[in-house]
Amino acid sequence: MAGPARAPFSREAANALDEFKPPVVSFHFGLPAPELLARVKSWGSVILSSATTVEEAQWLEARGVDAIVAQGLEAGGHRGHFLSADLTGQMGTLALVPQIARAVRVPVIAAGGIADAQGVAAALALGAVGVQLGTAYLLCPEATTSAVHRAALRSEAVRHTALTNLFSGGVARGIVNRVMRELGPMNEVAPRFPLAAVAMAPLRAAAEKRGLGDFSNLWAGQNANDSKPIPAAQLTRALAARL
Amino acid sequence: MAGPARAPFSREAANALDEFKPPVVSFHFGLPAPELLARVKSWGSVILSSATTVEEAQWLEARGVDAIVAQGLEAGGHRGHFLSADLTGQMGTLALVPQIARAVRVPVIAAGGIADAQGVAAALALGAVGVQLGTAYLLCPEATTSAVHRAALRSEAVRHTALTNLFSGGVARGIVNRVMRELGPMNEVAPRFPLAAVAMAPLRAAAEKRGLGDFSNLWAGQNANDSKPIPAAQLTRALAARL
Repeated sequence: MAGPARAPFSREAANALDEFKPPVVSFHFGLPAPELLARVKSWGSVILSSATTVEEAQWLEARGVDAIVAQGLEAGGHRGHFLSADLTGQMGTLALVPQIARAVRVPVIAAGGIADAQGVAAALALGAVGVQLGTAYLLCPEATTSAVHRAALRSEAVRHTALTNLFSGGVARGIVNRVMRELGPMNEVAPRFPLAAVAMAPLRAAAEKRGLGDFSNLWAGQNANDSKPIPAAQLTRALAARL
Repeated sequence: MAGPARAPFSREAANALDEFKPPVVSFHFGLPAPELLARVKSWGSVILSSATTVEEAQWLEARGVDAIVAQGLEAGGHRGHFLSADLTGQMGTLALVPQIARAVRVPVIAAGGIADAQGVAAALALGAVGVQLGTAYLLCPEATTSAVHRAALRSEAVRHTALTNLFSGGVARGIVNRVMRELGPMNEVAPRFPLAAVAMAPLRAAAEKRGLGDFSNLWAGQNANDSKPIPAAQLTRALAARL
């Protein structure tokens, strides 16, 4: 894997999956070491991975990925950038998807800021063959989203997200809360990934015990203010409504 | 006008336009003073202005704007943000357009990262009734784009744009060049808008004389790498091809 190693896909992970031979394996932050990737391919698994730039998409295609998740700047949580830490090169989904679709031959799945059937239709118009949504599912009863996170997603606060390194040391998008306001969402003295999570844990736990999300990572994308607490199957059908 | 005044629409500007009574007047960075806006309205002009957040769109609608240009983070040059200087709240076009379309009753025109007929179709799917493109027209023979700017737009460099305050003191998106790399695209010591342009002028002039864009503001949006040097009418027809 190029770039910083983040919870890499290990031999142990491959051993654990061996008996399941999953039909689809989706990576984030690049790809595992070539011998591990070959092992996943030997299962017949379809390999996906995320690209946040044209260069990352071309890098993934050259290594045999079967489909690429083009993940724009609007996406919540940790986006999968792995070739460069320069955030200025990061693009909005509307600009990224068509550029990646032109640059590679494998199918492109759009992600980032897609929240409803209109967004799905727009992504397909841009050249994607499918979409990936995260934030929209966070309020589904099936999701393990915490109580403070659910409350934030249903509040006015969801309208303002920012990229922050405070919660993990990596750059991720979350709802702006007290600690992001007080320390600034991007702070040079945040411990390196993933150690910032350890540093924040006691404050987070103490606040959450009091029902506060002031020190929690409230991951959300930029178009989260229409999320609904409906079952995942119902949401999926609604998203496909205009196809 | 709320926010920083930037080349404001003055009584003199209104006097100059009085005899033309333009059918459409489009503002940027908010709106002029109420009495000047009323004067423009008295001509029967349709009033447009840009919004980069939902709050700005609601602010404009409340003041009688007839249509709102929803301008996403992908857009080149100076985007029209005027209610807040906090760039973290700035959204990609795919996330911004549907939120503004839901929040206001006036028609929404999408802008930012739209470069071809696919982008137009995507913007309409998101709820826009029209689109505005800038970068795509910069290579048209009718445009007054400088030689170094045209060369940059046709080079590989166009693939990497960034928000920068070096060229005017305001925040604008341009192709990353030498001065942006060497000083960092956002630099706290850049003179305030619009004085940074004066500070940069001698370097810019000297470099351009040698055919170099190293110190020039090479404005471009994030999806500029498919721009073509074709006449504006031909480009416009191509953009409408899928409608």
